[in-house]
Amino acid sequence: MWGLTWLDGRVHLDLSADVVAVTRQLVDIESVSHHEEVLADAVEAALAAAPHLEVQRRGNTVVARTHLGRAERVVIAGHLDTVPVNDNLPSRREGDLLFGLGTCDMKGGDAVILRLAATLTEPGRDVTYLLYDAEEVESVHNGLRKLAESDPDLMAADFAILMEPSNGVVEAGCQGTLRVEVTVRGERAHSARSWMGRNAIHDATVLLQRLHDYQPRRPVIDGLTYHEGLNAVGIRGGVAGNVIPDECVLTVNYRFAPDRSEAEAEAHVREVFDGFDIVVTDTAPGALPGLAVPAARAFVDAVGGTANPKFGWTDVARFSGLGVPAVNFGPGDPTLAHRQDEHVPVAQIIRCEEQLRGWLTRTV
Amino acid sequence: MWGLTWLDGRVHLDLSADVVAVTRQLVDIESVSHHEEVLADAVEAALAAAPHLEVQRRGNTVVARTHLGRAERVVIAGHLDTVPVNDNLPSRREGDLLFGLGTCDMKGGDAVILRLAATLTEPGRDVTYLLYDAEEVESVHNGLRKLAESDPDLMAADFAILMEPSNGVVEAGCQGTLRVEVTVRGERAHSARSWMGRNAIHDATVLLQRLHDYQPRRPVIDGLTYHEGLNAVGIRGGVAGNVIPDECVLTVNYRFAPDRSEAEAEAHVREVFDGFDIVVTDTAPGALPGLAVPAARAFVDAVGGTANPKFGWTDVARFSGLGVPAVNFGPGDPTLAHRQDEHVPVAQIIRCEEQLRGWLTRTV
Repeated sequence: MWGLTWLDGRVHLDLSADVVAVTRQLVDIESVSHHEEVLADAVEAALAAAPHLEVQRRGNTVVARTHLGRAERVVIAGHLDTVPVNDNLPSRREGDLLFGLGTCDMKGGDAVILRLAATLTEPGRDVTYLLYDAEEVESVHNGLRKLAESDPDLMAADFAILMEPSNGVVEAGCQGTLRVEVTVRGERAHSARSWMGRNAIHDATVLLQRLHDYQPRRPVIDGLTYHEGLNAVGIRGGVAGNVIPDECVLTVNYRFAPDRSEAEAEAHVREVFDGFDIVVTDTAPGALPGLAVPAARAFVDAVGGTANPKFGWTDVARFSGLGVPAVNFGPGDPTLAHRQDEHVPVAQIIRCEEQLRGWLTRTV
Repeated sequence: MWGLTWLDGRVHLDLSADVVAVTRQLVDIESVSHHEEVLADAVEAALAAAPHLEVQRRGNTVVARTHLGRAERVVIAGHLDTVPVNDNLPSRREGDLLFGLGTCDMKGGDAVILRLAATLTEPGRDVTYLLYDAEEVESVHNGLRKLAESDPDLMAADFAILMEPSNGVVEAGCQGTLRVEVTVRGERAHSARSWMGRNAIHDATVLLQRLHDYQPRRPVIDGLTYHEGLNAVGIRGGVAGNVIPDECVLTVNYRFAPDRSEAEAEAHVREVFDGFDIVVTDTAPGALPGLAVPAARAFVDAVGGTANPKFGWTDVARFSGLGVPAVNFGPGDPTLAHRQDEHVPVAQIIRCEEQLRGWLTRTV
């Protein structure tokens, strides 16, 4: 049994169970984004029972900290929410795999956090365990974003580990993202007398040519090779089947390595599309891998010595924005996230817990 | 007064009035497409009163013919319908201009047809006067198209004049039109790992380049210089702001001179876009100017000696399809058609009637 019990209308987690059982407890408490309260209550209650932790609650985000006066502090964080249920609850075990919504993204990681929090009474580093809500929805709701604004001191640390699925291998930093709309203007005319107008779609040729010929950077940062990309993700134009179009709008997404700031990324895109009308519609900064920081280096060494670059954008950038180097490290294959058949190898959960426990037990 | 009278719930046209007054009668009988019946009834009754005409009715299309055994027969045609009312009825005269819905497109021309039909009892050519419905809506409703299918013998002639607005100058033939969708396919990927996919929008560059560089033909036919055009009239592509798009669809409109058939036009477009997936969505043939035909040449000479090429597609192509050379010739500036402030110079209506009367009075 994995130990989920309901009492007086509240659900109780049993953190003395093994990490796979704890994962199943977490998975079986449904917590689709915006409906994390029951799970957050259970997490808060379970952590409050540990006398070595100071527990604070902000909305459905729970923060539990040790105060041992250690030389370093590390944040270990995970989100509590999942994407919508898709006929994949409750959890079920098939051989070495655990299936169910959130097994991979990311209640396996959450279980590791909760097990460490409940059982490591005297870690070698002070630890801030951070479980937050609303990661799977628009950024405006994101619990970690809100915490960074309301209580940045609760996120202060020398180093942070975000337990997003990464197959149990460290993924460091993340690339930034910038989205722009590039507009080409022309002049309408009847298509039977096309020479009376100017075709905005034809005039977009040079734009597409620049994208087609673009050579993305592959900078090496802290020993990791990032890989940028500048891509049209949308194009639209046209008035009617017999009208020369007077406008063509291209939506372009620039994924940039973390050695560039948002401002530098924007300047670069403006340079590429020099001469065209550009509007920035969306932007998020990258995060440097920070592997030169001793705490980060020590962590990578402790969990196998391998680190890969993270290409997609993740919440590690929020720590980076507060000056805290951060990496992704968690059980589960990220390409299985959000899939109906989401699952996690139980061995990965167990190994992640062991590796983190080993690293946290050592004194800096 | 322009002589519109209502009797027993029916409206009566007075074709003994001058052509400007007849235009006002026609304009003031509202006849938006699909609502031509009242006007068609009045036209049929007025023409049936002329003993030199054989009048036939098909739906709201009225055909009136002389049978004088002349050496040649000419069709003179106009549509009875208008685009929707736009606070521009009834007609009003301002100086030398007549304002109101249909004054330009094309009740001025219809008035000329009706005046000639009612008063020319012994023309030098046999004449088929043809007033039809539903020209301003989808082709499937077009009265001339229906007549060409049900009663092609009623359209038989040596020559046809369509009295669409052309500023009282002959516009000969018309260009054909072909619309195709050209699809570029790629492969989806997350835009943070764009190299895992293939960007269909980027791969459309070569398509746009071909359109951009395209040199349209300007063939001379019967002394008239046509002007082709190959234009993108629409482009679409894109899945989401973070996805490499796997499809980009370009809508292209080819306006081709009347020395090319629809099949030749399609073959040309397929050659231009060789290597891409093409679907033809719409096509209509052009019409040769036919000015080498003696009746046509004589007509052009009779109305001033000038003929211009018609670039847009018009119903003259329907006559062409039946082997009847046809031209556009009517009062009114075609660029004023469908505008709220549509109007026609009364002098143009009068001159059109005089010129046609002079030509029709002569014996071949």
